[in-house]
Amino acid sequence: MTAVGIDAMEVWTGKLKLDLAETFAPQKGDDPGKYTKGLGLHASSFPDAYEDIVTMGANAAHRLMDRKGLEPEDIGRIDVATESAFDNSKPVSTYIAGCLEQVYDGDFHHANKGERKFACIAGTQSLDDAVNWILAGRNRGRGALVVATDTALYARDDAGEATQGAGAVAMYITEDPDLVELSTEQGYGSADETDFLKPNQQFPSVDGKRSIQVYLARMREALEDFESVSGKSHPDDYEYIPFHTPYPGMVRKAAVLGYRHMIRDTEIEAELADQIGTQPRREDFDSAEAFEQAIRDYMDELKNTEAYREWYADTIEPTLDISSHVGNWYTGSVHIARMSALRHAVENDVDLAGKRMLVASYGSGAQAEIHAETVQPGFEEEVLASNIDEQIDARYDLSWSEYEQVHDRHNHEKSVELEPFTQPDSEFVFDGWGPMNERKYTYVE
Amino acid sequence: MTAVGIDAMEVWTGKLKLDLAETFAPQKGDDPGKYTKGLGLHASSFPDAYEDIVTMGANAAHRLMDRKGLEPEDIGRIDVATESAFDNSKPVSTYIAGCLEQVYDGDFHHANKGERKFACIAGTQSLDDAVNWILAGRNRGRGALVVATDTALYARDDAGEATQGAGAVAMYITEDPDLVELSTEQGYGSADETDFLKPNQQFPSVDGKRSIQVYLARMREALEDFESVSGKSHPDDYEYIPFHTPYPGMVRKAAVLGYRHMIRDTEIEAELADQIGTQPRREDFDSAEAFEQAIRDYMDELKNTEAYREWYADTIEPTLDISSHVGNWYTGSVHIARMSALRHAVENDVDLAGKRMLVASYGSGAQAEIHAETVQPGFEEEVLASNIDEQIDARYDLSWSEYEQVHDRHNHEKSVELEPFTQPDSEFVFDGWGPMNERKYTYVE
Repeated sequence: MTAVGIDAMEVWTGKLKLDLAETFAPQKGDDPGKYTKGLGLHASSFPDAYEDIVTMGANAAHRLMDRKGLEPEDIGRIDVATESAFDNSKPVSTYIAGCLEQVYDGDFHHANKGERKFACIAGTQSLDDAVNWILAGRNRGRGALVVATDTALYARDDAGEATQGAGAVAMYITEDPDLVELSTEQGYGSADETDFLKPNQQFPSVDGKRSIQVYLARMREALEDFESVSGKSHPDDYEYIPFHTPYPGMVRKAAVLGYRHMIRDTEIEAELADQIGTQPRREDFDSAEAFEQAIRDYMDELKNTEAYREWYADTIEPTLDISSHVGNWYTGSVHIARMSALRHAVENDVDLAGKRMLVASYGSGAQAEIHAETVQPGFEEEVLASNIDEQIDARYDLSWSEYEQVHDRHNHEKSVELEPFTQPDSEFVFDGWGPMNERKYTYVE
Repeated sequence: MTAVGIDAMEVWTGKLKLDLAETFAPQKGDDPGKYTKGLGLHASSFPDAYEDIVTMGANAAHRLMDRKGLEPEDIGRIDVATESAFDNSKPVSTYIAGCLEQVYDGDFHHANKGERKFACIAGTQSLDDAVNWILAGRNRGRGALVVATDTALYARDDAGEATQGAGAVAMYITEDPDLVELSTEQGYGSADETDFLKPNQQFPSVDGKRSIQVYLARMREALEDFESVSGKSHPDDYEYIPFHTPYPGMVRKAAVLGYRHMIRDTEIEAELADQIGTQPRREDFDSAEAFEQAIRDYMDELKNTEAYREWYADTIEPTLDISSHVGNWYTGSVHIARMSALRHAVENDVDLAGKRMLVASYGSGAQAEIHAETVQPGFEEEVLASNIDEQIDARYDLSWSEYEQVHDRHNHEKSVELEPFTQPDSEFVFDGWGPMNERKYTYVE
């Protein structure tokens, strides 16, 4: 079987920052710990006045193509995943191709362009489409450019307002990739759910409590479905487990469920039995309620064990770092979790080549997908080439009133002029509206 | 190589009809021939008050599953293509799965659900994703359900108002299909165009003249790209050529261009030379303008030749029949063109099994895709099982004032109550709004 996966990856963060502890919490009259500890978030990224999902996606893609020496001729498809689209017909990928054609000699007329929508999981679905296209032998030697780009805005004063974010991830998918190879096995957990949706509206309707339950239920189904084709998972199988990260606190809840599932009937469960007993089994309980309460009690104890804390610190915590500084990037979120993990390995001399990660994607509405990835020998070079830290550090730190203006500027219902806070430099920028209401873009040297 | 393609297909038309000659033309003060001859359209389908893209898609899928004896367990993915979505995050496929789960014992929790958007070409892109998934060997023995569903509405008094339509196509994609096998070869012609778009609006902004030019230019590129992998095309290679059909008049323009391209340097061009000369060659002209004028002149003569008229009558005209009675179904359009062709073969005893069709899809924005399909021995049974004629005949014939109410009812900007004109019978219907602004559906016995 041909090895297919992610050859290279670049990210582009919105250039503005809202500091949750310094700026958001005081305004809401909250203790900063509610955000930094409770949600696990320090800041959100926002797009400057000249940025949007097209510029962020095109800039990430441009950086990737430049660094890898790619020409349009090398790229056979451009798939964009977003839940922040501003057009009901024309896909964002055509705008991004139009941007890139401004700075390359060649064109993308030969490239299949598409757009996928399914809340935050569409980025992984687009990655999957690209992998299938290559495995199917229909790529004519070309790779695929997959871009996950979103501006995750909530209505002002919505409970989700603290978990906003904006950024794009560009990935190049090829045979014999430099970064990670994807497993052909994958598991799904998918149901028609009303946890988070945007019916003819830009800002989401969210049922926060339901949303957490659905995330966990779909993840459990996806893991079981994955195991039905790949065999039972064990915590030692995976060096890192990047999850979709709407905010790190959500991943904390999912991690303990996943760990409990994976250690069941293993030597780890047996070793922990002295401390916290063995896991409750359904057949030992009269009612489902009693069983579920016993499971919750077991997990409360489990997460305080040394074994769990070590596993979490090694396997999960390193995936949350970038997310905690940029917020929720929707479709890009699980992909920056992967990047966080790979970067952690390089910074801590973890010998990751040949090792495996379990990647757990999720989209409200709702669906989880789980697959494995094998890290390739070239991963270190790829990670060292990323400038995500510089991008994060260079963001303009918004005051509260500036944040309010920025939120209005990116609200589709409003037409708000705003002076940019930063200066564009060698990048694509939004350049106003054309006669058919189309958004126009230009490259600024 | 595994044979992969469309195993079965069902359509569902909106249950209302606007007659262009009898109702639309008089109201506009036009000669009916402007529509019936000029555009090639007799009527448009519209959804009744209880219909929308979810009900039409779910009803087509239900009919397909019932007829083929499929259970949810047989279906590994549900992909929906639409440019009429009413939610910016939650995909239509989850709603359709939710409908189907009301009438089947099993569920679709194992099924990857998605949604694609690229104007009218997304239906073919979703078909393609399903084919790639199976060719990649990741389908675990399951098939894919692909649904193309749209309500194609234009603003009142827009030039496109005569080309509206509403309906859904459901296709089941498998190995060793009963209907058609798809070629692995495909050609693309794709560019960033501003011909038709819906920027934060339900009704399109259209540049009609540009839209025709772009359709033809992208089709030409796609055909050349297809020939670069499959070899030169000849008119005798294909029994039928179903095109994306926004209205039959558009296909007339594309057909003569395609024929001219295919006969170049063939015995057909030589045989026609006595009558109309050989095709102009660029090197014989001083300017591009003079060359293009000569090409136009050649095509004007070509389309009046007996050879062209016969080819058009045999190869193109049969693909337009359903479309001329239901209007533009956007993502479903090219798929009802294929169905028209297959039905024509059955009705006229054309021995089609093993023969090939060339399928030419298009989406504004803009992209064309061309691939070949080989008709399978089971096609006749599939065609005879379709009840599309009964559906078309059973539509309620709207008066002008009723049409105006129906247009308002399906305008997202308006909240209009409307008594249905027809009675639902053994089908899914829209059942009002839930607390999070979600649309709800129920099955009516």
